[in-house]
Amino acid sequence: PIANDNYVAFTFFIGCMAMMAASVFFFFELGNTEKPWRTSVLVSGLITFIAAVHYYYMRDYNLATGQSPTFFRYVDWILTVPLMCVEFYLITRKSGAKIGLLWKLITASVVMLITGYIGEAIYGQETQSWVWGFVSGLAYFYIVYLVWAGDVKKLADAAGPAVARANNALAWFVLVGWAIYPIGYIAGTAGGFFGIPMLRGLSMDIVYNIGDAVNKIGFGLVIYALSRSEKVISLPARA
Amino acid sequence: PIANDNYVAFTFFIGCMAMMAASVFFFFELGNTEKPWRTSVLVSGLITFIAAVHYYYMRDYNLATGQSPTFFRYVDWILTVPLMCVEFYLITRKSGAKIGLLWKLITASVVMLITGYIGEAIYGQETQSWVWGFVSGLAYFYIVYLVWAGDVKKLADAAGPAVARANNALAWFVLVGWAIYPIGYIAGTAGGFFGIPMLRGLSMDIVYNIGDAVNKIGFGLVIYALSRSEKVISLPARA
Amino acid sequence: PIANDNYVAFTFFIGCMAMMAASVFFFFELGNTEKPWRTSVLVSGLITFIAAVHYYYMRDYNLATGQSPTFFRYVDWILTVPLMCVEFYLITRKSGAKIGLLWKLITASVVMLITGYIGEAIYGQETQSWVWGFVSGLAYFYIVYLVWAGDVKKLADAAGPAVARANNALAWFVLVGWAIYPIGYIAGTAGGFFGIPMLRGLSMDIVYNIGDAVNKIGFGLVIYALSRSEKVISLPARA
Amino acid sequence: PIANDNYVAFTFFIGCMAMMAASVFFFFELGNTEKPWRTSVLVSGLITFIAAVHYYYMRDYNLATGQSPTFFRYVDWILTVPLMCVEFYLITRKSGAKIGLLWKLITASVVMLITGYIGEAIYGQETQSWVWGFVSGLAYFYIVYLVWAGDVKKLADAAGPAVARANNALAWFVLVGWAIYPIGYIAGTAGGFFGIPMLRGLSMDIVYNIGDAVNKIGFGLVIYALSRSEKVISLPARA
Amino acid sequence: PIANDNYVAFTFFIGCMAMMAASVFFFFELGNTEKPWRTSVLVSGLITFIAAVHYYYMRDYNLATGQSPTFFRYVDWILTVPLMCVEFYLITRKSGAKIGLLWKLITASVVMLITGYIGEAIYGQETQSWVWGFVSGLAYFYIVYLVWAGDVKKLADAAGPAVARANNALAWFVLVGWAIYPIGYIAGTAGGFFGIPMLRGLSMDIVYNIGDAVNKIGFGLVIYALSRSEKVISLPARA
Amino acid sequence: PIANDNYVAFTFFIGCMAMMAASVFFFFELGNTEKPWRTSVLVSGLITFIAAVHYYYMRDYNLATGQSPTFFRYVDWILTVPLMCVEFYLITRKSGAKIGLLWKLITASVVMLITGYIGEAIYGQETQSWVWGFVSGLAYFYIVYLVWAGDVKKLADAAGPAVARANNALAWFVLVGWAIYPIGYIAGTAGGFFGIPMLRGLSMDIVYNIGDAVNKIGFGLVIYALSRSEKVISLPARA
Ligand SMILES: CC1=C(/C=C/C(C)=C/C=C/C(C)=C/C=O)C(C)(C)CCC1
Ligand SMILES: CC1=C(/C=C/C(C)=C/C=C/C(C)=C/C=O)C(C)(C)CCC1
Ligand SMILES: CC1=C(/C=C/C(C)=C/C=C/C(C)=C/C=O)C(C)(C)CCC1
Ligand SMILES: CC1=C(/C=C/C(C)=C/C=C/C(C)=C/C=O)C(C)(C)CCC1
Ligand SMILES: CC1=C(/C=C/C(C)=C/C=C/C(C)=C/C=O)C(C)(C)CCC1
Ligand SMILES: CC1=C(/C=C/C(C)=C/C=C/C(C)=C/C=O)C(C)(C)CCC1
Repeated sequence: PIANDNYVAFTFFIGCMAMMAASVFFFFELGNTEKPWRTSVLVSGLITFIAAVHYYYMRDYNLATGQSPTFFRYVDWILTVPLMCVEFYLITRKSGAKIGLLWKLITASVVMLITGYIGEAIYGQETQSWVWGFVSGLAYFYIVYLVWAGDVKKLADAAGPAVARANNALAWFVLVGWAIYPIGYIAGTAGGFFGIPMLRGLSMDIVYNIGDAVNKIGFGLVIYALSRSEKVISLPARA
Repeated sequence: PIANDNYVAFTFFIGCMAMMAASVFFFFELGNTEKPWRTSVLVSGLITFIAAVHYYYMRDYNLATGQSPTFFRYVDWILTVPLMCVEFYLITRKSGAKIGLLWKLITASVVMLITGYIGEAIYGQETQSWVWGFVSGLAYFYIVYLVWAGDVKKLADAAGPAVARANNALAWFVLVGWAIYPIGYIAGTAGGFFGIPMLRGLSMDIVYNIGDAVNKIGFGLVIYALSRSEKVISLPARA
Repeated sequence: PIANDNYVAFTFFIGCMAMMAASVFFFFELGNTEKPWRTSVLVSGLITFIAAVHYYYMRDYNLATGQSPTFFRYVDWILTVPLMCVEFYLITRKSGAKIGLLWKLITASVVMLITGYIGEAIYGQETQSWVWGFVSGLAYFYIVYLVWAGDVKKLADAAGPAVARANNALAWFVLVGWAIYPIGYIAGTAGGFFGIPMLRGLSMDIVYNIGDAVNKIGFGLVIYALSRSEKVISLPARA
Repeated sequence: PIANDNYVAFTFFIGCMAMMAASVFFFFELGNTEKPWRTSVLVSGLITFIAAVHYYYMRDYNLATGQSPTFFRYVDWILTVPLMCVEFYLITRKSGAKIGLLWKLITASVVMLITGYIGEAIYGQETQSWVWGFVSGLAYFYIVYLVWAGDVKKLADAAGPAVARANNALAWFVLVGWAIYPIGYIAGTAGGFFGIPMLRGLSMDIVYNIGDAVNKIGFGLVIYALSRSEKVISLPARA
Repeated sequence: PIANDNYVAFTFFIGCMAMMAASVFFFFELGNTEKPWRTSVLVSGLITFIAAVHYYYMRDYNLATGQSPTFFRYVDWILTVPLMCVEFYLITRKSGAKIGLLWKLITASVVMLITGYIGEAIYGQETQSWVWGFVSGLAYFYIVYLVWAGDVKKLADAAGPAVARANNALAWFVLVGWAIYPIGYIAGTAGGFFGIPMLRGLSMDIVYNIGDAVNKIGFGLVIYALSRSEKVISLPARA
Repeated sequence: PIANDNYVAFTFFIGCMAMMAASVFFFFELGNTEKPWRTSVLVSGLITFIAAVHYYYMRDYNLATGQSPTFFRYVDWILTVPLMCVEFYLITRKSGAKIGLLWKLITASVVMLITGYIGEAIYGQETQSWVWGFVSGLAYFYIVYLVWAGDVKKLADAAGPAVARANNALAWFVLVGWAIYPIGYIAGTAGGFFGIPMLRGLSMDIVYNIGDAVNKIGFGLVIYALSRSEKVISLPARA
């Protein structure tokens, strides 16, 4: 049986069920969504669904071994973070977003996650971990830039006030919500912050679990809200 | 085999099946609901569905160990109580409820539940449990205030007689229906009522099981009834 | 393997499959039902569905232990009998049934079943069982009264000939169909009829199994038939 | 592994899959059926579906024990034969069939099957088995009479040429198709034909399996064909 | 683990998945099919679905025993070959095909398959196997005749160019595609070709697996293609 | 538990989930697709679905044995590569593609895959493997030719700019995306490149897993994008 003070397990259970409920919500609301926005809401549902499956794995792994399921986390992120990039692309398509922008976002994500994996899962116990984390951070900040001031920001603004406002919310998620992960990385690897160990002892899993739920479900809800306000303006079906 | 006088198991079986049947009911009635109210009825279904899953866990845990499944109860509440707050928000949106109100409700719920968990699951055998319960109670009464006299009440009244009446019913649930839980807390923890043990011996599980079924299904049915009367006035799609 | 003369097992198999087939029938016929009557047919399906699940448990319990699964029977009844009360309420709503009537019916049912459970499952081997059965019977006859001459009867008559006729059929179910259960109780408990043991040796399970199938499926079919005749008059959406 | 000359197992596998495929067929064709005929096609699907479930049980029982699964056969028949009576009732409703006719058919079926069960499963090794079979036969021939010359025949003829033709086909099923079962009974019980053992050695299971498939699927297909020809005349929604 | 040169297992895996994918394809395309053709496409889906289930059995049997699963193959054929006859009947109904034609086809199929089973599964190691195969071949060539020059051919030609062309394709399947099976029979039984052993050593399973996939999926695709071209002319609903 | 540096397992997990998510995406988007394009999107979903099933097998096989699941890979490719050929055929049908073209593509695929299997799975440890790979390469380059300059290219160009552009994208997939496989073959077999071992040590599985995901999902997305742009011009229903 699970000890009452096993907060890590507690958050895994919450995460798993929250993701599953969110997926059911998004899938059920598809029929209630205007046609041009259905793909976006479907993607929101896919993000939470993929997360639900992996949380199921992670929960069992953690209950069985007591270890942090880093392996499964990164498998999950490498699928869901690009899907979040797809969301940015879908809402800016109307004002001219080209597929090239999507590739920039996805490439940055993949670089960020692969370097992060090497740093955390392979060299997590060595000082060099901070170097990998640093490179990962560069990719991360590139995404933050694109969404706050770069192409994504400009296209979103040009797409109308509702899209601009939604992108604004998503931008805050990327800056603050996603910042949880590097912080957890710094706390959880030997290299710490530029070589200086910091915040050792902070359980990475609780941070990630809560952060994941907030980020993924919140992200999906912003898209969902946007789909309900943009009743008039539809997205063109440009490839 | 289960002893005939195992009332705790009895109520777990009832709870599990009742929640599952209620979910089937709400999901099947979605197609029968006017478009603006579908999200509300869907959320009712999600609340009972999440509960059904956790009741399945709790029932097996209780049959296996004979213990109170506090762990799973709080995992369940920390997902379903915020969803109930979402219900309040959804029905007052028409008359101007802002997202800030939803955050007030959810924050209060989370504070209430986290302090309650610490008090019940971590320090449940110590006198200090009443302190945690007291703080939890403060958060609880804040929610009661919002729904009886504060923002939620005012906005509900402004949204028309049907919404006002529904909010009234929900308010009674929050005041009387939800009061079951702090009472069970007082009965089940060493700190009792402000340090004085009270009602020791009362089985918390039976109280919670019956209370959960009444609260969650009743809550959903109030929303469901409201969706059938508000045939004319629709909710605006403001984010 | 099951002995050919194991009539109890025979009826459990029949019951389980009959309930499942009836649920499939009602759920599939939902799309074929006029909108105002869909909730009623859905409830019929829920009643048989809940029964199907519990019959699955009861069948296995009986095959494994050879005992009467009283525990599961009452879990099943405490969910399905109130749902039958809901059916009475739904068909009399049109002519003014108030929610108070539903509460009267449900309260009487719950009293009837709880006293019945204590009498049968806890004190079934003692003489005092007849006292509990007597109190249960009082509640039972109150329901019979409501449906034959009281509020339900009056409202059904006022709702039109089809509803009146349906209520008449349901009333017969309650008087004759449901009488099976107290008879089984008298036969199966030590207290018998007002203290005098009667009909000892009659296997309660066969009586209950056949009775359940007839009552639940028959009840649902009466509602179903009513939904097919009332094509013109619709139920108002009053809460 | 199953021996190649295990024809009994061969027919169990065929039966199980045939019933499942027929159910899929009828359920999928529901949407393709005119509204007034949907209930009839649904019942056809339920008949084959119930049979599919029981064939699954019977197949495993026979593979495990090598015995004839009489127990499960009769559980299956006591649900499906009344459903076939319902089919007769549904197609003659248009020309005035009263619910009393359905009760006559169902009562006769139940008598036929219960006496048959006692004769075959309880006293199958004794001479008296022929007595039970005789009583069962009386009930059987009553059904044959009703469908060939009695109420069912008259009402079917009055309902139009398509219904009359369908009833004619169903009548042949009842006379010839269903005759398989008493023949198998005579061959398989000690009492044989009026006390004289006959056709001993004929494997009852192969006869029943093939007969069941032909009867149940054939019955359903006659109803299905009727639903496709009666495009103009609809069944009234009389209770 | 499965050896890389286990071609038999290789083809079983392919067969199983191909049949499952084809079924999904046909079922999903039902909604996309004109109403008069839906039954035909549904039957195509049923043929591949029944095959998928049996391939699942056959694959496991073959992996476990290394033997040819003749038993399951014939169970599969005795259900699917008559269904293919139904397809011929359905497309010629428009130009007057009577139910008698369907019976001719099905009877021939059943004779062909039963004699084939006795020859292959019971006497497969004896010389007399060729006699059984010969009788089976007579039935087979009768079907070939009906489809190439007999009733089916004439009715198909009368039903229009699209149906005629489809029947032509199906006729090729029956002549060439189905010829695989008798060839495999000749290769795999002691009696060989009219008593002379031939092609001994050729693995029957690989031939059958590939043949089945081509025949069943190809057959279904011809029907599917026909349903897409016959947009104008609909099939009458004559029983 | 899986080692953090087990990149092969990492990619199997990604592959399995990505394929499953892509299938859900394509199936859910069917209802959102214009009628003439539904078959194409359905085929995309079938390709990823078949892949998802086989990735499930491959993942478990690899976790259990540590070996490369060549057997399952080829079972998967021999079903999905012909389906990709079907996609080419479907988009060129409008401008006159004949079924003969589809046969050319499928035949070339089958030759390519069968020779590749023999080379890799049977003689993978011998020098002659390069001969088989060479023949396979001939078939591969034939497909490349058809799509870049041959029939497929010409018909695509004649079908309009959107189809031409889509075919262009698909052509790049075939040339670059599919090139991964022969490269992996050269690296993984003893015969290497025309007899000279090359790139030994490169893990074939990681290359194939990533390549599969990119190819199958990318292929499906190109078709999907095409279906959204071709809103006006529909495909004729020519067989
Ligand atoms: C910058 C940075 C990282 C960023 C990770 C991020 C941004 C993860 C986002 C995950 C999401 C959004 C998951 C689900 O929603 C790592 C890899 C931890 C490594 C250290 C540096
Ligand atoms: C005030 C208070 C509590 C309140 C709990 C509540 C209000 C729970 C509500 C649960 C619901 C509504 C569940 C499902 O429907 C605790 C945490 C027991 C701790 C003590 C003080
Ligand atoms: C009066 C009475 C009883 C009545 C039980 C009833 C009326 C049960 C109804 C059950 C139904 C309707 C089940 C499913 O359909 C008991 C509790 C046996 C106890 C003795 C007195
Ligand atoms: C007359 C007679 C019998 C008749 C049985 C029948 C008529 C069974 C019908 C079964 C069907 C129709 C099954 C599924 O389709 C018995 C009971 C064997 C006993 C001996 C006398
Ligand atoms: C003529 C002949 C045979 C024919 C078999 C056929 C024609 C089987 C068809 C199977 C199909 C069509 C399966 C699924 O699609 C046998 C029985 C091998 C026995 C020898 C003679
Ligand atoms: C040329 C060549 C090959 C090509 C394989 C290909 C082109 C596979 C394509 C697979 C796809 C497209 C899978 C799923 O999407 C082999 C067989 C490796 C053997 C060596 C030569």
